[in-house]
Amino acid sequence: MLDVACREVGYIYMAHVVIIGGGFGGLAVAKRLARLRGMAVTLVDRRNFHVFQPLLYQVATGGLSPADICAPLRSVMAPYKNVRTVMGEVTGFDLDGRRVLVAGEQELVYDYLVVAAGARHHYFGHDEWEATAPGLKTIEDATAIRGRVLSAFEAAEVEPDPEKRRALLTFLIVGGGPTGVELAGTLGEIANDTLKEDFRSFRPEEARIQLLEAGPRILTAFPEHLGAAAERSLLALGVRVRTGVAVSAIDGDGVKLANGDQIPAKTVVWAAGVKASPLGAMLGAELDKAGRVVVTTKCRLPGRPEVFVLGDMAALQGMPLPGVAPVAMQQGRYVADAIEAVMLGREFAPFAYVNKGNLATIGRAKAIADFGTFQLSGWVAWLLWLFIHIMYLVGFRNRVQVFVHWAFQYLTFNRGARLITGERG
Amino acid sequence: MLDVACREVGYIYMAHVVIIGGGFGGLAVAKRLARLRGMAVTLVDRRNFHVFQPLLYQVATGGLSPADICAPLRSVMAPYKNVRTVMGEVTGFDLDGRRVLVAGEQELVYDYLVVAAGARHHYFGHDEWEATAPGLKTIEDATAIRGRVLSAFEAAEVEPDPEKRRALLTFLIVGGGPTGVELAGTLGEIANDTLKEDFRSFRPEEARIQLLEAGPRILTAFPEHLGAAAERSLLALGVRVRTGVAVSAIDGDGVKLANGDQIPAKTVVWAAGVKASPLGAMLGAELDKAGRVVVTTKCRLPGRPEVFVLGDMAALQGMPLPGVAPVAMQQGRYVADAIEAVMLGREFAPFAYVNKGNLATIGRAKAIADFGTFQLSGWVAWLLWLFIHIMYLVGFRNRVQVFVHWAFQYLTFNRGARLITGERG
Repeated sequence: MLDVACREVGYIYMAHVVIIGGGFGGLAVAKRLARLRGMAVTLVDRRNFHVFQPLLYQVATGGLSPADICAPLRSVMAPYKNVRTVMGEVTGFDLDGRRVLVAGEQELVYDYLVVAAGARHHYFGHDEWEATAPGLKTIEDATAIRGRVLSAFEAAEVEPDPEKRRALLTFLIVGGGPTGVELAGTLGEIANDTLKEDFRSFRPEEARIQLLEAGPRILTAFPEHLGAAAERSLLALGVRVRTGVAVSAIDGDGVKLANGDQIPAKTVVWAAGVKASPLGAMLGAELDKAGRVVVTTKCRLPGRPEVFVLGDMAALQGMPLPGVAPVAMQQGRYVADAIEAVMLGREFAPFAYVNKGNLATIGRAKAIADFGTFQLSGWVAWLLWLFIHIMYLVGFRNRVQVFVHWAFQYLTFNRGARLITGERG
Repeated sequence: MLDVACREVGYIYMAHVVIIGGGFGGLAVAKRLARLRGMAVTLVDRRNFHVFQPLLYQVATGGLSPADICAPLRSVMAPYKNVRTVMGEVTGFDLDGRRVLVAGEQELVYDYLVVAAGARHHYFGHDEWEATAPGLKTIEDATAIRGRVLSAFEAAEVEPDPEKRRALLTFLIVGGGPTGVELAGTLGEIANDTLKEDFRSFRPEEARIQLLEAGPRILTAFPEHLGAAAERSLLALGVRVRTGVAVSAIDGDGVKLANGDQIPAKTVVWAAGVKASPLGAMLGAELDKAGRVVVTTKCRLPGRPEVFVLGDMAALQGMPLPGVAPVAMQQGRYVADAIEAVMLGREFAPFAYVNKGNLATIGRAKAIADFGTFQLSGWVAWLLWLFIHIMYLVGFRNRVQVFVHWAFQYLTFNRGARLITGERG
């Protein structure tokens, strides 16, 4: 592999860095290292595209197409001639031999290894709930949830039994973090606005949307008054927020609460927890209870200074950090600089997270923003949310197409929808 | 069903028309009948969306997202309060009892029935080829082809054996009609332009794209000099057109020709033939060799004046017509008017097709156009193609979103991507 990359560019490399994962963290490492002549970088991902995860809920609710929030990794990396992209599933590590094993009997020999494979959702020992209550981490999750929500409305249109129809029109979201709040708000919007004229045998606003949170309040990462503002906005969209309710069982008929109540519902979405990628376990390192690899404050695997772990997969010793894109991106740039420092024989300081603020949106034209010294809620916060998300999306070459029509796309030679998904559309 | 629709609108209906199929034909019937107060219309489709089939090849080649060329049937029908949309699979007919049977033990009683369920691809007795050489008729077909094409490039990037890489980079399109030509042209574009900078171990223009046609020339629906112009345009895009070559076998290793030649190729796309929907056989009527229902020149099922069949499913006695959208749309409006005439006790003339012209596009900025009295090729024809396709797309409410960015979409309450596809994205 390294051999091929070298031949392409035509000079000797000083080091080969293998990056696993094309998420926010992995891309940040690759882009920053690519500036350095003399670096050969191989980016490995199971998929051929990067997903802009903060907008996955928009795909799950039919607002955006999968391609709108994805960027082909090859397109993102095309300008960097010293970066090679490999689509493949990592199957194991030989840390002593500095080798990454990839499905199909490939192997990658590295000088430095960066593991940034992210997280999946987590059912806290109830994996059997996944079939009924899908989580939202991949494009396939999003289109599956989209299909379930829309199918429930379709089935309700032809269901004569009022009780069954009520279950079809009940949508439960488990987990009151940003993903749960965004999903619930958008479902409220869909029922009240988008589908308003579409059905003949019921009114879409008959839909009941409930956000179930086990803790005492939603959006615990935000100050209490912002959480309360978000709750009011949800209520205005017809979403009932129920705090202090723990889920004890989920099946095809609905959700059973710890207090014994049963909520009949055909659609349940899981937004209550995540677990780090199983690649962490393959590294043979110590894991915390969320499956994250315990690393030093320099993002290093203990005893393996050439191996870095970052993003949702990493638990920095004594430094609890939220599982959000800015952490992964900052760690990505940090690790790239750390590798440069090591190669130059320089010291480097431990990672320090700069919290630039925290945003969550609730349906159309409402959001909350927390910048520590000041807080915002309402439509000003929403405009800010919009601006920041468009800014970050535009960071990827092909995001321009979100803004212009396809005739323009034709004239620019650009094709954004290059996703390898499943066979079923 | 009828009962529910009546209650909604609040006056007595004179007739209930059931339309099967939300394609160009079915939608044309529904929209035209919806103008008539006193008509109750039920539109039945297996899917919850209409597909703009002439642009499917754009989805198959990653230029457009599925949602860009689909319109949710409920959105299209939302303004027409006397039209009810039912998502369901038709399982049979009881023509004597004037009933349509729908999966899930539903049934629809009609006064008039319109069957417009379209066509699938056809392997002329070699259905086993479908697994290796998918056709292009549904959104799932399109995303499957997209996945195969892109996966082949990905696999070529890590394939050290030059011979295997050559097979991975060989793309065969069987069938030289408009779909085959459009697919081949766009693949040529992708290899020469879109992916130009994306790979490190081969040059995308090493891809070999061959269009295989059994007949003596491509695009037989067009005059010979336009077919020749299209062939020159394809050649300029690096596509080799091979006429007079019949395919005798297709498997995972490639295609075997009738003359004994073997072409090693990992990606084969079938664009060589279509067969009408199996619903035709369920009507118990006479079928032609493409599975189409033989109907009168008034689109009526012989002996059943209240049953109409149209579009790709219908073969009008003594009137051969191409399987294109304008035929289905004109027949749709014709059948709606015919039903109105019957109800008013008026006579109506047989269907007459007005051929407004014939267009095909070959990659970027090249097309051919045939208007009988005059013909065009080159970029003027392409501008015309672009204009006409955008015009027709805009006919559907949510096509506006093809032209504007998603921030605007947010402000308009519109959501276009409401497709129920498979679970795999």
